[in-house]
Amino acid sequence: MKKLINNVDNVVKEEMEGIAAAHADLVRVDVANQIIIRADAPVKGKVGVISGGGSGHEPMHGGFVGMGMLDAACAGHVFTSPVPDQMQIATKAVNGGAGVLHIVKNYTGDIMNFEIAAELAQADGINVEAVIINDDVAVQDSLYTAGRRGVGATVLAEKIVGALAESKADLHTVAEMCRKVNSMGRSMGMALTSCTVPAAGKPTFDLGEDEMEIGVGIHGEPGRKRMKLASADEITEMLTMPVVEDLGLKQGDHVIAMVNGMGGTPLIELYIVYRKLDEILKGMGVGIARKLIGNYITSLEMAGCSITLLKADDEMIKLWDAPVNTPGLRWGV
Amino acid sequence: MKKLINNVDNVVKEEMEGIAAAHADLVRVDVANQIIIRADAPVKGKVGVISGGGSGHEPMHGGFVGMGMLDAACAGHVFTSPVPDQMQIATKAVNGGAGVLHIVKNYTGDIMNFEIAAELAQADGINVEAVIINDDVAVQDSLYTAGRRGVGATVLAEKIVGALAESKADLHTVAEMCRKVNSMGRSMGMALTSCTVPAAGKPTFDLGEDEMEIGVGIHGEPGRKRMKLASADEITEMLTMPVVEDLGLKQGDHVIAMVNGMGGTPLIELYIVYRKLDEILKGMGVGIARKLIGNYITSLEMAGCSITLLKADDEMIKLWDAPVNTPGLRWGV
Repeated sequence: MKKLINNVDNVVKEEMEGIAAAHADLVRVDVANQIIIRADAPVKGKVGVISGGGSGHEPMHGGFVGMGMLDAACAGHVFTSPVPDQMQIATKAVNGGAGVLHIVKNYTGDIMNFEIAAELAQADGINVEAVIINDDVAVQDSLYTAGRRGVGATVLAEKIVGALAESKADLHTVAEMCRKVNSMGRSMGMALTSCTVPAAGKPTFDLGEDEMEIGVGIHGEPGRKRMKLASADEITEMLTMPVVEDLGLKQGDHVIAMVNGMGGTPLIELYIVYRKLDEILKGMGVGIARKLIGNYITSLEMAGCSITLLKADDEMIKLWDAPVNTPGLRWGV
Repeated sequence: MKKLINNVDNVVKEEMEGIAAAHADLVRVDVANQIIIRADAPVKGKVGVISGGGSGHEPMHGGFVGMGMLDAACAGHVFTSPVPDQMQIATKAVNGGAGVLHIVKNYTGDIMNFEIAAELAQADGINVEAVIINDDVAVQDSLYTAGRRGVGATVLAEKIVGALAESKADLHTVAEMCRKVNSMGRSMGMALTSCTVPAAGKPTFDLGEDEMEIGVGIHGEPGRKRMKLASADEITEMLTMPVVEDLGLKQGDHVIAMVNGMGGTPLIELYIVYRKLDEILKGMGVGIARKLIGNYITSLEMAGCSITLLKADDEMIKLWDAPVNTPGLRWGV
């Protein structure tokens, strides 16, 4: 195992210390509790928006804490859910009196722990709503999930919902927008290689030199099929068409598109994938209104990519364009 | 070889098509000539700033074309210099009447071809100055270079010089700032793994399962030494101290710091490196005024990192903070 680390037990702690040293202007970091909090939290009268999950998917979620996106992110160990205590502390820290939204990816551990945290926070008198993101069309149930997994739409939800919360919309309105983004967002991913969890010390799964996994999960969970390596164009079609069909995209629709690298994929390859995605959607009369191309929800050093499409209306696009100032996404400021 | 490509011969062409499809609001792309040009070029009365080099280092340079940074970038094939024709076309396309600056990384092919292009442009009546970036402290001469290689300081130079050009400074002033950034910037990199050039189909170099290369070049050129894998803290010291010493950094100095991923390094690891870099500099009384942490000058899917420090004065920091709107760097707009 070749990694730029000191000790497998301290990977997340030292990452937190690095983020604290780098981004004190944007966030404060509770290193002991592995929580990243917006520097000026709680913002009075604003709905607090928090998320969290296992580490190893950076920049998600900690890299998306700041003005216009998340108020806090709870980091578990690599590929391991954070615990309810973290979420409870985060919920309290960001409560500006207007309640707190929990954005939860659909993994059994995350769901369970966020539910407990919501109950604890509500017992403390904080109004909490939770929205579950389950946008991965690849498989119905999975290694750590009942139903569809939550993946790339989480990034888009955090941006759009964060902008709406910034405008001082109320908790119900913010939660409804998050549900809408989830209902209009779909993703599918693939892997050329596995990744290695530091504490495990060996690849999560084995993939032959001429094989790839279509529909892979962000923890290396099995996808739809393992098959011979195909061309970028063929792979892009295999990822795009199930998303398009599940979403029922039709001529005249507009999407926010994300071509996401899994962590070990050169940007040059992501642009080759985007080229084909654009061609497919143009051929259907679907417009790409906004896009992200790069590493946003990763699986350590896995090589591969995922495609997320969000059928977007004017309100979503306006919220997308609103200023954001986080370590991982920044514009307008 | 596992890559998201269609054909090894079309990698750069299809990347260009992807960039054209994605970023028409920011740039126009001459796909046939592999040139990315700022959408509103030439900007009348502004010094045009261009750079270029082999592909495979994305987002550099094409990802840095746009308001506040480069006016054009010429892309060679992967790890191969662009040709004088490309640079001549780019120079003409961005000449707004105030002359054009060529920012050239110190590789023999790049230097030679930019020199020819400058002569051709000057014969056309365009005033051209060239500045060579040679910031890599690892080795004196190298596989493709006489003297020091040009690496990470190029990214910082493109941002700072681009902002100065945006303010309508004259060609001499812009070129002088570029020389100053180069003289105050130093870098060193390391590799945990090789990368594979698509056309070669096999890794550029071999590195044992327990080995790393300290001082590696961005094309996999040999560095200072090949040695047993060390901890992130030890590696960070090995990269930082030669940079600090060569730059003569002392208490009270301020730097712009970049912790750069080589393409296949998870962000979590870059923050662990940043943590130690911050600790080393704090211990010396050197302040980090601004920072970049992520993939900015890559070597395809190589795992590893580089550290760049630029001893920065107030003017450089002010130019750093100026608005920029490119596919790869964006703030203030």
